[in-house]
Amino acid sequence: MSDLSKSTLDELVEFSGQLAEASGRAILPYFRTNTAIENKLESDFDPVTEGDRAGERAIRALIERQYAHHGIIGEEFGSQNEGADFCWIIDPIDGTRGFISGAPLWGTLIGCLFEGKPFLGVLDQPYLQERLIGVTSKEHRRASVSARTGHRTLRTRSCRTLAEATLTTTSPVLFDEGPEKAAYDGVEDACKLVRYSMDCYGYGLLAMGCLDIVVESGLAPYDILALIPIIEAAGGQVTDWRGNPPLDGGQILATGDARLHQKALDILSPAAS
Amino acid sequence: MSDLSKSTLDELVEFSGQLAEASGRAILPYFRTNTAIENKLESDFDPVTEGDRAGERAIRALIERQYAHHGIIGEEFGSQNEGADFCWIIDPIDGTRGFISGAPLWGTLIGCLFEGKPFLGVLDQPYLQERLIGVTSKEHRRASVSARTGHRTLRTRSCRTLAEATLTTTSPVLFDEGPEKAAYDGVEDACKLVRYSMDCYGYGLLAMGCLDIVVESGLAPYDILALIPIIEAAGGQVTDWRGNPPLDGGQILATGDARLHQKALDILSPAAS
Repeated sequence: MSDLSKSTLDELVEFSGQLAEASGRAILPYFRTNTAIENKLESDFDPVTEGDRAGERAIRALIERQYAHHGIIGEEFGSQNEGADFCWIIDPIDGTRGFISGAPLWGTLIGCLFEGKPFLGVLDQPYLQERLIGVTSKEHRRASVSARTGHRTLRTRSCRTLAEATLTTTSPVLFDEGPEKAAYDGVEDACKLVRYSMDCYGYGLLAMGCLDIVVESGLAPYDILALIPIIEAAGGQVTDWRGNPPLDGGQILATGDARLHQKALDILSPAAS
Repeated sequence: MSDLSKSTLDELVEFSGQLAEASGRAILPYFRTNTAIENKLESDFDPVTEGDRAGERAIRALIERQYAHHGIIGEEFGSQNEGADFCWIIDPIDGTRGFISGAPLWGTLIGCLFEGKPFLGVLDQPYLQERLIGVTSKEHRRASVSARTGHRTLRTRSCRTLAEATLTTTSPVLFDEGPEKAAYDGVEDACKLVRYSMDCYGYGLLAMGCLDIVVESGLAPYDILALIPIIEAAGGQVTDWRGNPPLDGGQILATGDARLHQKALDILSPAAS
């Protein structure tokens, strides 16, 4: 992609922080309040709350005011002008199931694409007061986390083998029975430690160097695009199960160590859809 | 049990807060630092860190200085004087697997028994700066949470049926294959929403009224005793799978609504060990 100037990047990073501030203020009043929960699906349970909508509204309003020519793709209110050079992609609450259960591991995902590729991503957890920001462009690559405990550069950790790895996934029932579930189980069984139910926060812990591998399936683009710059700038890699850029979501593999990525792909790629 | 005076209760509640302060200060330096992890078991992975030991040491030192005649039962350093009228029971990091994965849902559990029965419990999460305290004696019963966002009384929520319930358990592989796993699956399948990997924090969310039911197996006494006063004073109930007080740990059922408790017991009790 054409490279972005440092001043453009800095301006958009600064602005993405404002978006996260605004969404956090809009969402937090609905956290742990037994807010009304609607079900998006007839045949299954896909909850959405007023918190999701309030968060996305706050973000869209700021983008429309500041960058009226930018595109927006959001989980709750759809797409507008998505062919623009710059396009924002928003999941106001990634992990709504966690949100409505009171666990503070949901996150607000805000990504920005330039010519279709993500170069800026934010994972904001306003209850924890943690904000991860990553930037990847040809000449600029940096990722950091700001928290009550301070500000630091993100760096994935080294982990050469599955036998040493800590894995996370949203749920072991995320995977289709058959080859997909068998491939996932093959990776999980080879790992040392497994944690569930972390949604986007698992990718954040990967970027922080706290765990080694995330395997998921069935993700939407807004579930993953904002995370790509964070993970890559922290030294990790995130692909689909074939090893390609995961720009359409779907089956996802993220690791902190490239050697581990290849070992997991060896198991997952035969079941790539 | 004989009832405790209000002044004794107040003194011990105040002291239990000091214990939580001290353990939090001792443990937090080891959180998210890739601290050395030892395995307690040869055939499985049961991690323990210097954080566990530092937390328990800090708690034991204060108890020994202030109440030398009290008993202590701790996960890491064993029992002393456990037949005393007052006995403290400590799990410095409940959820060490979560701790070493960077997730902030582990907790420090500090309970106090009088004549063998828990009447005071603390669940402290120092990274979140949340502290739940519950007291149950004949005449005094109260539970509250202190957090950055304020101090409030704990109150479980009403939930009459499994079909409306949010369930949590540490892991679906916690249960022995056979009748125990089948009974657990019977409850899980009947619930609306399931979250994993929360360890003691799931009981905290139950007491906060954020979720409805926790089902577990294989717990040690130090995993559950401190939680009993918190859950009961918040309006919930916690028993073994037969419906008896869970003073020895083992198979645990906790709910926020007594009607739900009975419905879950109907499914679980045939598999009670």
